[in-house]
Amino acid sequence: MDNARLLARKLFIKFPILQAPMAGGSTSPALAAAVSNAGGLGSIAGGYLSPDKLRAEIKETRTLTKSSFAVNLFTPLSNPVPTASQFARANALLDPYRKELGLGLNPPAPEKYCEDLTAQLQVVLEERPSVFTFTFGMPPESFLHECKNENIVTIGTATHIEEAVALEKAGVDMVFAQGYEAGGHRGTFIGDFHDARIGLTALVPQLVQAVKIPVIAAGGIMHGSQVAAALAMGASGVSLGTAFLLCPEASTNQPYRATLKSPDARFTEVSRVYSGRYARGIRNRFMVEMEKNAGDIPEYPIQNAMTREIRTASAKAGKADFLSLFAGQGVTLIRELPAKELVETLIAETFSAVQKVQFVIGL
Amino acid sequence: MDNARLLARKLFIKFPILQAPMAGGSTSPALAAAVSNAGGLGSIAGGYLSPDKLRAEIKETRTLTKSSFAVNLFTPLSNPVPTASQFARANALLDPYRKELGLGLNPPAPEKYCEDLTAQLQVVLEERPSVFTFTFGMPPESFLHECKNENIVTIGTATHIEEAVALEKAGVDMVFAQGYEAGGHRGTFIGDFHDARIGLTALVPQLVQAVKIPVIAAGGIMHGSQVAAALAMGASGVSLGTAFLLCPEASTNQPYRATLKSPDARFTEVSRVYSGRYARGIRNRFMVEMEKNAGDIPEYPIQNAMTREIRTASAKAGKADFLSLFAGQGVTLIRELPAKELVETLIAETFSAVQKVQFVIGL
Repeated sequence: MDNARLLARKLFIKFPILQAPMAGGSTSPALAAAVSNAGGLGSIAGGYLSPDKLRAEIKETRTLTKSSFAVNLFTPLSNPVPTASQFARANALLDPYRKELGLGLNPPAPEKYCEDLTAQLQVVLEERPSVFTFTFGMPPESFLHECKNENIVTIGTATHIEEAVALEKAGVDMVFAQGYEAGGHRGTFIGDFHDARIGLTALVPQLVQAVKIPVIAAGGIMHGSQVAAALAMGASGVSLGTAFLLCPEASTNQPYRATLKSPDARFTEVSRVYSGRYARGIRNRFMVEMEKNAGDIPEYPIQNAMTREIRTASAKAGKADFLSLFAGQGVTLIRELPAKELVETLIAETFSAVQKVQFVIGL
Repeated sequence: MDNARLLARKLFIKFPILQAPMAGGSTSPALAAAVSNAGGLGSIAGGYLSPDKLRAEIKETRTLTKSSFAVNLFTPLSNPVPTASQFARANALLDPYRKELGLGLNPPAPEKYCEDLTAQLQVVLEERPSVFTFTFGMPPESFLHECKNENIVTIGTATHIEEAVALEKAGVDMVFAQGYEAGGHRGTFIGDFHDARIGLTALVPQLVQAVKIPVIAAGGIMHGSQVAAALAMGASGVSLGTAFLLCPEASTNQPYRATLKSPDARFTEVSRVYSGRYARGIRNRFMVEMEKNAGDIPEYPIQNAMTREIRTASAKAGKADFLSLFAGQGVTLIRELPAKELVETLIAETFSAVQKVQFVIGL
């Protein structure tokens, strides 16, 4: 059977459009359910959720849709903690922003830098969503094995050939081809960031050639013509994040929404300033200023935990200056539509693009 | 009329596949003519050719094909010359490589750092190729006007929306959308390099939306499935460079060919080390070592002129270590075929990819 049909059948969806998880707080059960109800596949972004909150979001989504949806987690190879001097230096870099936002200076180290992955994975096994997606590495082998037993479809994230091959070898069912265009965190987990800045047009055919499992294209896709393009390159489906950020069902905060609609949105950069891990977002003051101290920014998840209070206060103050404005390079093509209408529009555009190209090559 | 048909008609070609000019010495009249004879559009890379040599290549190509072909030139906004101390510092950085290659150390400044663009443009007007393409900026307004009078189709290079809009406004007939995947020099001429690292999947729909003139997709395209993808995104044609580097008609040197076939080829980087201008090539020793001195590398065309002897000697010695191994991110998909067969294969693959996607969305 054709990979795309197989994918759609496995995921119980009408059309192979996935809503990418966006762990920054923009995804909601309402968004995931609306996408799934429209025939795509919604996603819960579990990366930053406590096990209890993760379970609650899964249960809430189930009250909103009878269709399948995905749960996404971060599965980094390690979660470092800072030394005292690293922490002090990183803290000092953030104090000017705390001052500007009226926050207490030089706060103590947070209780924890990230959620307990083992406990999060346990929730997934207990709640058994149709699909489990992950990025930043690979979950334990035993977990992947249990997913197979529980009929949970697994999808990992690859930014180059070697990662896709490793995921296939580990028994993962499908792979996201995350192009350099993609908003949010880079999924790179083998080699360094420099080896993994591959544009989607180059990446998709490379992964399709390298692995037998279905490849799902991710990065910069905002319009059905790009969905058609990804399918033409051999992708079995597509994953869109930024495209859904302005949906009323998304929990995108107001200053973030305002920036997404502004012409400045087109200047996106890949930077470590927000979380300590490379991620693409719209260039803002925090990014530009903090990039000057890039060498002193601690690794993920340390920086992420240390900047959270600043991001929250920035959103509350209605300022986009200190938010992580994650967005892909296609952001200028963003539309403000209800999720159902957006999915239907994307499907219609895909058909229309295929019809147009048929005409074009009929020269 | 549809843009793609209009393009094909204007360029007198059967299928909108263009062979990108590759000024590093890999393009030849034989390659350009073979591509044009196969129904695509061949290109002469005139950037580094003296006016006499440019005229000779055009005439030679005419003896090999009755079809139309393109001539490409570099049209930078300015061509700086170095100060004495800049020159001395840049020269000192290169001496270790000269020593290793048995070349004289600390050579005097070259007579000229680049060819005379005015004289090159004059040759174009006198020889009247069907198509004139350019990168790094914009030729003088008067020249574009004369091209219109002489029925020479003009195609400029854009790496982001603002450049495409500027080219359209200047009366240029068509625009290359040069994605970040592309091998060789970045065409960026408005804003800085950081604003222009846009993957082809994001760039093509953005330019198609921003301008009315036909958009030709360039960057990472090696296979017909990517041609179909570009057309689906609204491109009126595609431009492929790296894909042609292993054709027997190309004048690609032997160590370059060997590297293109090796698995190391997939590590490409955008770097200023070879010419002083950002360009994507396969990572080699010269790139890695010289990147450490990036701040001391003079601008284009200075560095280009100063490194030429080293590249020539490296090729002669059969070593790829000091060559500019320009290649796009799709390089792992390279094939070694005669140009005619490659063009025919690309066309067949394009048809097949469109048929496949029809089937896929027929879910």
